[in-house]
Amino acid sequence: MKDNLVFKYIGKVLIGFSILLVFPLIVSLIYKEKIISFVIPLLISLIIGYLLSRTKATRKNLYAKDGFMIVSISWFLISIIGAVPLMIDANLSFADAFFEAVSGLTTTGATIFSDVEHLSKGILFWRSFMHFIGGMGVLAFVMAIVPLSKNDKSMHVLKAEMPGPSVAKLVPSIKKTLFYLYFIYIGLTTIELILLMIGGLDFFDSLLIAFGTAGTGGFSVLNTSLATYSAFNKWVVTIFMFLFGVNFNIYFLVLMKDIKSVLKSEELKAYLFIFIASILVILLNTYNMFANLGEAILQTSFHVSSIMTSTGYSIGDINIYPTNCRVIVLLLMLISACAGSTCGGFKISRLLIILKTIKRDILKAIHPNSVRTITFEGKVLDESTIKSTQTFMYLYIVLIILIMFIVSFDNIGLTLEQTINAVFTTFANVGLCFDISSFGGFSALSKIVLSIGMLFGRLEIFPIIVLFTNFRK
Amino acid sequence: MKDNLVFKYIGKVLIGFSILLVFPLIVSLIYKEKIISFVIPLLISLIIGYLLSRTKATRKNLYAKDGFMIVSISWFLISIIGAVPLMIDANLSFADAFFEAVSGLTTTGATIFSDVEHLSKGILFWRSFMHFIGGMGVLAFVMAIVPLSKNDKSMHVLKAEMPGPSVAKLVPSIKKTLFYLYFIYIGLTTIELILLMIGGLDFFDSLLIAFGTAGTGGFSVLNTSLATYSAFNKWVVTIFMFLFGVNFNIYFLVLMKDIKSVLKSEELKAYLFIFIASILVILLNTYNMFANLGEAILQTSFHVSSIMTSTGYSIGDINIYPTNCRVIVLLLMLISACAGSTCGGFKISRLLIILKTIKRDILKAIHPNSVRTITFEGKVLDESTIKSTQTFMYLYIVLIILIMFIVSFDNIGLTLEQTINAVFTTFANVGLCFDISSFGGFSALSKIVLSIGMLFGRLEIFPIIVLFTNFRK
Repeated sequence: MKDNLVFKYIGKVLIGFSILLVFPLIVSLIYKEKIISFVIPLLISLIIGYLLSRTKATRKNLYAKDGFMIVSISWFLISIIGAVPLMIDANLSFADAFFEAVSGLTTTGATIFSDVEHLSKGILFWRSFMHFIGGMGVLAFVMAIVPLSKNDKSMHVLKAEMPGPSVAKLVPSIKKTLFYLYFIYIGLTTIELILLMIGGLDFFDSLLIAFGTAGTGGFSVLNTSLATYSAFNKWVVTIFMFLFGVNFNIYFLVLMKDIKSVLKSEELKAYLFIFIASILVILLNTYNMFANLGEAILQTSFHVSSIMTSTGYSIGDINIYPTNCRVIVLLLMLISACAGSTCGGFKISRLLIILKTIKRDILKAIHPNSVRTITFEGKVLDESTIKSTQTFMYLYIVLIILIMFIVSFDNIGLTLEQTINAVFTTFANVGLCFDISSFGGFSALSKIVLSIGMLFGRLEIFPIIVLFTNFRK
Repeated sequence: MKDNLVFKYIGKVLIGFSILLVFPLIVSLIYKEKIISFVIPLLISLIIGYLLSRTKATRKNLYAKDGFMIVSISWFLISIIGAVPLMIDANLSFADAFFEAVSGLTTTGATIFSDVEHLSKGILFWRSFMHFIGGMGVLAFVMAIVPLSKNDKSMHVLKAEMPGPSVAKLVPSIKKTLFYLYFIYIGLTTIELILLMIGGLDFFDSLLIAFGTAGTGGFSVLNTSLATYSAFNKWVVTIFMFLFGVNFNIYFLVLMKDIKSVLKSEELKAYLFIFIASILVILLNTYNMFANLGEAILQTSFHVSSIMTSTGYSIGDINIYPTNCRVIVLLLMLISACAGSTCGGFKISRLLIILKTIKRDILKAIHPNSVRTITFEGKVLDESTIKSTQTFMYLYIVLIILIMFIVSFDNIGLTLEQTINAVFTTFANVGLCFDISSFGGFSALSKIVLSIGMLFGRLEIFPIIVLFTNFRK
């Protein structure tokens, strides 16, 4: 490969990733479990990373395309390395371990395990920790702890990895932006951790559930997910899932005491509206299926929050939902929550841009000579943002259909509805869905295809497209 | 209403439509059935038409918006008048009769009857005749027999009614264009009629099946659709369904002996490719479910042809299809066949334009400074055609989701998969689908909503949007 600069950068990312593997290693040490399952991937990551970082680069500047390449290749490599502990410790096949690792890093939370309670503490920690580092972005996480390169270079990488139609720098410096983002991220996680402990959970479980909430992941430590937790803790998780679905810019504005701008946010208003409307409509159609109204409100709020933010925790059986509620759930999966949060899916801001574009184009078709601009969050959108949002929508639809097509050909006995559920929940990084509790029974082919779907969903398609089109050349 | 010109035009359309009601009246006379069920709607159409046509218009020129208005209002009125015979003769409720008439005129072919063999000859004729007149467009049909207005005015009406992203005039004059189109339409129908009679069917049944094939409708005269017909006739219908899915421009080129242009047609090649590929893939997955390979090939070819051209005839049980074949069938429904044919759905030419746009936009995202044009059928596409195709796609998706949403709330005990089937098959004007044989059991609300969906699908969305947005003002 002549493009050394990209690989040099990836090398640094892998070195950074090896440092992250120290955390589950420490957990294993504390619980006196065998540490070999984390030592091996740590060494692999460190050695490959070191070798790549030593290559001589022929040029200095990173371009937008390089950002895409670095992000997509890094994610594939990190997913493979992240699968190693699962292969060694939990004795999984490569397809199973890769699925589980991708599900962890992409914060999907779909699992191949039907029983997680027999897993070692180290592995349980690793699964949830992958959610935590994947939520804000593995490369962003690495950048926050290791200096990778100068500011101007890293912006392309951040842009390629962070969710949403446009990445806003909170402050002019990337370093400071990352600092604020992680301050908010870790701050909220810590508050949730403390509240869960007040609610009666021990430190280890509280930490893991908080990790999963923060990254909007969904891996849990019990086979019943969060069903046996106290009502207090269920409400805590409901609220924090919702909070992690908010655009982090909003929290930054709150920190800057700019409440006026917060209240003006179109995306935040739409998020709140969809959230409350979905709860009310589902409640109206299912309240008589629960022991009492309080339980109905808790379960519905929890599951709407869990699905809409692409987390995937559950506290009861959603298979009781009638068809209309299932349609709502599938739409919530596809749309998901705010851009600039840790959620998967299409994002509300994109939906708003697309709806505004449709309205404009209809009006233009009826009154061909009129000139109309689209404003979003108080600013006039330029045509290139509109166009890239449209392209993203096409690719989103085409890829979902393509993955559904491949999985349906795998003949693993799924009905059409189950196929839709499986593809939507992985592609949108949700993890919870109707009629499927574990992906363990899927074939290796389906597991790999769904894993690639999760990566497409998490990285918002473009980086992987660039990767494929570049390798073709 | 101040906009008399539009209503004046609609009046003439209704007068023309009353003439079309003479045909089933004659059939009833021949078979000595009561003619009152056709006399009443004929008089309604004639009287309302006469009154509207006598209004004084304040302006002379028809604009694009007027074309949309005329088409959408006419179709609603004609659907209501067309439902009257079914209400009188077959004793249907308004919702049932409206659904059946819309299904006929939009050439969908979804029926509310579970038993059609007890229907009178007049009604059977009327159902299939609605396919025949709806296929090319009711207003186009009326224009072809009654002079409505001068050439330049009618173009906007034709444009609003005819399927496809752009209506090509075959020759400079609209009158001559209509002549050629109807020459091809009636010519092909006549050949099929003769072949079916050679195949052993009587004149009446042959005529009705030919009507349904020509309009790509799907109403049949037996409860088993075409299952009891001879293999020869099944092949005849298979081939003619396919032929009516071809863009009529192609036949015009054949008549002009311009075979070179025919062979170059991108849409025709894509149509053939999708058609053959679908047959092969479904055959590979289902051939062992049939008595012998010949039967498997016949049934698969017939059903692919029937679904892809949005006809909806059937000769066997498609519910045996496994999930992957169901995915293919649903995609075939949505895509459908060529623009400028009598088919429903999205149309292959639009799909090709969208795919080319996606490809261009990806390349543009990777190489931002490059300039790229999209060529289709040998011509460079202008941005306005691309934009209107994109808008059509958005609206197509949004409307399907919206209708699915409403129908799912009707709580008529449908699963999600059945809801998808019902909405796709009506919106794309197909009529045949998995797990639903008759729409009689649906609620009145669902019948009306699905009927409006059929009209949206047949008129390709825009005319009805213009109608709604105009009434809102």
